[in-house]
Amino acid sequence: MRPIMTAFEKSPDGGQGLARDMRVRWAFEEVGQPYEVRLVSFKGLKAEAHRERNPFGQIPTLEEDGLVLFETGAIVLHIAEQHPGLLPPDPAARARAIMWMFAAVSTMEPPIIEREQAGYTDRGKAWYSTERFAFLEERISVRLAELSARLGENDWLDGDFSAGDLMMVMVLRRADARLVGKFPNLHAYVERGKARPAYRRAFAAQWAVNGEGPVPV
Amino acid sequence: MRPIMTAFEKSPDGGQGLARDMRVRWAFEEVGQPYEVRLVSFKGLKAEAHRERNPFGQIPTLEEDGLVLFETGAIVLHIAEQHPGLLPPDPAARARAIMWMFAAVSTMEPPIIEREQAGYTDRGKAWYSTERFAFLEERISVRLAELSARLGENDWLDGDFSAGDLMMVMVLRRADARLVGKFPNLHAYVERGKARPAYRRAFAAQWAVNGEGPVPV
Repeated sequence: MRPIMTAFEKSPDGGQGLARDMRVRWAFEEVGQPYEVRLVSFKGLKAEAHRERNPFGQIPTLEEDGLVLFETGAIVLHIAEQHPGLLPPDPAARARAIMWMFAAVSTMEPPIIEREQAGYTDRGKAWYSTERFAFLEERISVRLAELSARLGENDWLDGDFSAGDLMMVMVLRRADARLVGKFPNLHAYVERGKARPAYRRAFAAQWAVNGEGPVPV
Repeated sequence: MRPIMTAFEKSPDGGQGLARDMRVRWAFEEVGQPYEVRLVSFKGLKAEAHRERNPFGQIPTLEEDGLVLFETGAIVLHIAEQHPGLLPPDPAARARAIMWMFAAVSTMEPPIIEREQAGYTDRGKAWYSTERFAFLEERISVRLAELSARLGENDWLDGDFSAGDLMMVMVLRRADARLVGKFPNLHAYVERGKARPAYRRAFAAQWAVNGEGPVPV
């Protein structure tokens, strides 16, 4: 039995590959594990059948031999632990790769998502303002500067490409490209991730669900 | 050599045990691993020596036999992998415990921290308002309701106490007790965590640094 992943029936991003199923697809492609996809409608996300997979009513989830997981970090780590290719064998390097996975979702992502959500949830609110967006973007820029300083001239965050890079590249893709672009090494880092054959395959697979016409190069 | 953890020289919470070193202390206490603490001043957090431990200039960090880690999720997971007591031996149950660690820092914590920060970073801003705080608290309440529904009448999130519960209890402690209190099972869950002998020892250890007078019961 192939593992089954859930994804949006139709992603709001129209195939840009920003939805979180892309992280799981990419991980599966890196390790060469075929998988099935169960598409879920927006209404379906909040239905009991999906809440049993994920109490927070979000995609993606993973089902495999009776195990049901949610949280992309946990799913990608599970895949990385079962197959070679996403975690280094050295125990210390492995612990640092997992550290970068947590850094991606716990330190880098929250201000990025906050800015993204403010664009729609705050519309019509008294506090919706250019000044507030500048404040939120400054918070993102502080984190980007810190990450940029640590990455330096390296290709990846710690030695070879790992699940930590996979998560970090996907989180950076959610940020405004204008903000990331101020840090040429981070821009190059994201492009390096996107150029990986496994990423390209994962992107094409989500494009087949969410996009229209030929896959953008 | 005992592992060395960094913590605030003086926590802004005055010993309430809300700073993130408490998570690492609690994990060490659960598994019975003695540790050393290096206290870092606010100025020291942004100094190069600490940035080498954590590029984002935060506590806690862990140093152990040449390995340097930041991110509480990664540190607690590292401790849990090295010692019995925080992760179940069954592989599926272990994956779910790690899932709850990610859920704590990636799904539950961001709106809680957003509300907390808004109390001070937004002061004096045009968008600082009661209406905005209500909006942020509603976002937290949605997550609390979902977590409460999943926890139900169980003592812990998935079977026995695990690193997932440790992280979740600490994240819930950061939320306004008034919000958590609307869900009696979540309130009881947090109290159950706080009643554990290992939690009490960890709390007393941080109190010795940050509090004044006898340890509150």
